[in-house]
Amino acid sequence: MTQLEYARRGLITEQMQTAAAAEGVAPEFIRDGIAAGTIVICHNIKHANGTPLPVGAGLRTKINANIGSSSDDTDMQKELEKARIAVKYGADAIMDLSTGGPVDEIRRAVVAETKACIGSVPLYQAALDAVRVKKKAIVDMTVDDIFAGIIKHAEDGVDFITVHCGVTRSTVDRMRNEGRLMDVVSRGGAFTIEWMAYNHQENPLFEHFDKLLEITKEYDMTLSLGDGFRPGCLADATDRAQIQELIILGELTQRAQEAGVQVMIEGPGHMPLNQIQANILLQKRLCHGAPFYVLGPLVTDIAPGYDHITCAIGGAIAAAAGADFLCYVTPSEHLRLPDVQDVRDGVIASRIAAHAADIAKGVKGAMDKDIQMAKCRKKLDWEGQFALALDEDRAREFRANSPVADHGACTMCGEFCAYKVMDDAMKR
Amino acid sequence: MTQLEYARRGLITEQMQTAAAAEGVAPEFIRDGIAAGTIVICHNIKHANGTPLPVGAGLRTKINANIGSSSDDTDMQKELEKARIAVKYGADAIMDLSTGGPVDEIRRAVVAETKACIGSVPLYQAALDAVRVKKKAIVDMTVDDIFAGIIKHAEDGVDFITVHCGVTRSTVDRMRNEGRLMDVVSRGGAFTIEWMAYNHQENPLFEHFDKLLEITKEYDMTLSLGDGFRPGCLADATDRAQIQELIILGELTQRAQEAGVQVMIEGPGHMPLNQIQANILLQKRLCHGAPFYVLGPLVTDIAPGYDHITCAIGGAIAAAAGADFLCYVTPSEHLRLPDVQDVRDGVIASRIAAHAADIAKGVKGAMDKDIQMAKCRKKLDWEGQFALALDEDRAREFRANSPVADHGACTMCGEFCAYKVMDDAMKR
Repeated sequence: MTQLEYARRGLITEQMQTAAAAEGVAPEFIRDGIAAGTIVICHNIKHANGTPLPVGAGLRTKINANIGSSSDDTDMQKELEKARIAVKYGADAIMDLSTGGPVDEIRRAVVAETKACIGSVPLYQAALDAVRVKKKAIVDMTVDDIFAGIIKHAEDGVDFITVHCGVTRSTVDRMRNEGRLMDVVSRGGAFTIEWMAYNHQENPLFEHFDKLLEITKEYDMTLSLGDGFRPGCLADATDRAQIQELIILGELTQRAQEAGVQVMIEGPGHMPLNQIQANILLQKRLCHGAPFYVLGPLVTDIAPGYDHITCAIGGAIAAAAGADFLCYVTPSEHLRLPDVQDVRDGVIASRIAAHAADIAKGVKGAMDKDIQMAKCRKKLDWEGQFALALDEDRAREFRANSPVADHGACTMCGEFCAYKVMDDAMKR
Repeated sequence: MTQLEYARRGLITEQMQTAAAAEGVAPEFIRDGIAAGTIVICHNIKHANGTPLPVGAGLRTKINANIGSSSDDTDMQKELEKARIAVKYGADAIMDLSTGGPVDEIRRAVVAETKACIGSVPLYQAALDAVRVKKKAIVDMTVDDIFAGIIKHAEDGVDFITVHCGVTRSTVDRMRNEGRLMDVVSRGGAFTIEWMAYNHQENPLFEHFDKLLEITKEYDMTLSLGDGFRPGCLADATDRAQIQELIILGELTQRAQEAGVQVMIEGPGHMPLNQIQANILLQKRLCHGAPFYVLGPLVTDIAPGYDHITCAIGGAIAAAAGADFLCYVTPSEHLRLPDVQDVRDGVIASRIAAHAADIAKGVKGAMDKDIQMAKCRKKLDWEGQFALALDEDRAREFRANSPVADHGACTMCGEFCAYKVMDDAMKR
């Protein structure tokens, strides 16, 4: 049975108990959320060393770090180092999106070496196998190849899979009909559309959705219904294609939940910040409260080199409005495959966004560390401040790299430190 | 006559015309905004080489970079380099907050070397003169010293000055009465409170506000009414002391405007993100629409080393809700005096916030570059993308530091670039 089936029968599993303890909520709260479809626990029963990850309404906002090789950069050790750094700096989940080099080995090593929750996009596997093993093109994937990729990832212990089931002939038509500046920027979405156009067939993951449910259910993998029509620029946001896909994802959510399969929904993307709140509301309504997993949103297109910041702005607003799971974006987005430092910068930026949102949405205890930090700052207790910092190493480096005089303050204000002046003033 | 007095008489000045051209609005719009007090043009008549800076409702959100020495770091060349870098990466204004070394020389050099709008906090001058010239303590400043500092900055061509006029005996009492985790973190606020406590006198800048108006008016300096009770941590935000001060600042705004002096209001600070919108509304209402200049808001206290990001999140939300002018925060905030790289990081983060907000609030033409960027991305036109980037140098570095194969895409997706796949798919 899946966690959803247990929850529906009113049963509290070990996974629910662990999740409740980690979140500081009652196990019944987790169970009832799962039964209602507003919470999922991402955990493949084959992922022996994995930590079940609860995601959803009323819980701490989670963050995901994408890693993975590409055809231009296939170094497995680098990917493992990215996974370690991501977890060290606070990623709750890691998606391995490898598309170059020894992808099976990389995925298995990432699963083996980290306790974090693992996600993937199995369609890449089928596409790669078509190109590299069969020496054909992406469009030559068979339906069996696609499902074989999913089963391979399931067997390897992947906890949640992105499947672009809402990319259908009708949504593609709607997109063509309205027009877009950037068409489709989702890799899985683009592969699917090219395949459909070439083969004159419907999207297999839509057409054979019941088969997908059967496989997923066997492993209790969480379905992450991908947004193939994720806007790739601000101008394409919240358009007909995006919302049509979301409607279909809502229908599929219902089918999956009825079949006992846990589901979350993926969301944009590039988006003006004044559209974010409406998008969260739409997703929550159309998908009956299923957890929402957003990539960004990136609130401007013109900051390449700083898209961890454009993502943190959008992510904080999204999570405060109800998004449950933030996918990070690194500074290298739109420019190159991220390196290890980019992963660290991306994780911290997303943690800032998630944490700020948790305070805003009233997650229990979310502000505790902020209160402690305020007390340490007032006392000029530097060790206390470092221990509370989201990135202790970086905070220490900054202070170490500046001359610290015997006044105990920092070099920003030196002897004119407001904390010190106020300390005198309040004693008068 | 000041710009406000001209505007009230229905006259359009050269400064209004220049501002209108820069903003792409009608000169009448600028004039009417100035007359109503919702727009200011920051420009001291003594600042010969300065660019008049329009700030306010309906205009592009502006950003300010704080620079300045401290007693621990007094290198004038470093400060000048910070000023150059700030302007290069898009700061509209620079506040010189020097409190160490040759502060008069630094201020004059910054004014001479840049065309940007210049701000300062003249109270630091009086405090420094008391400590360094008179060999006494901050509390030994005389009222004349305080006004002498203001006149010195006015004569040097400073365009706007921060004055903490709302730090009064009654607001201090209200703060003590409620209690705060961090009391006062504003340097000017702390100096004022210590001075008041020691001398058992009211804040001279409140008591002699008319004298302040006379001086300011002579140079048409813009008064930036400082928030001495700016919360220094999330827990202190939107409390009695902060709002009481804002009420007083609203009253002073009215007096200044009646006297023909242009005014803007400074705002928080550290603040949970769900409180930002209410704070903007309160400021706009209590201060009758005067332009709002915010420092941050920083949406969490636990990210030292990354406060440019916590600031960008809060600043974007604030500006989208109506804040007109964002003061940057650098990564070194709370840890050390910023270096030149920190200034660049801070400026870009604030530009991202301001730009994202301008799109959200519908500033004319704000999304033009984003649309161009989308078109360049789709075509894999890298030179076009670099030219549109907020930080062209950084975008180029990222791409240069990764192997670029002959597929023309980037190393993120390599041969499986979604743009390329879609290009094929859409042709079918």
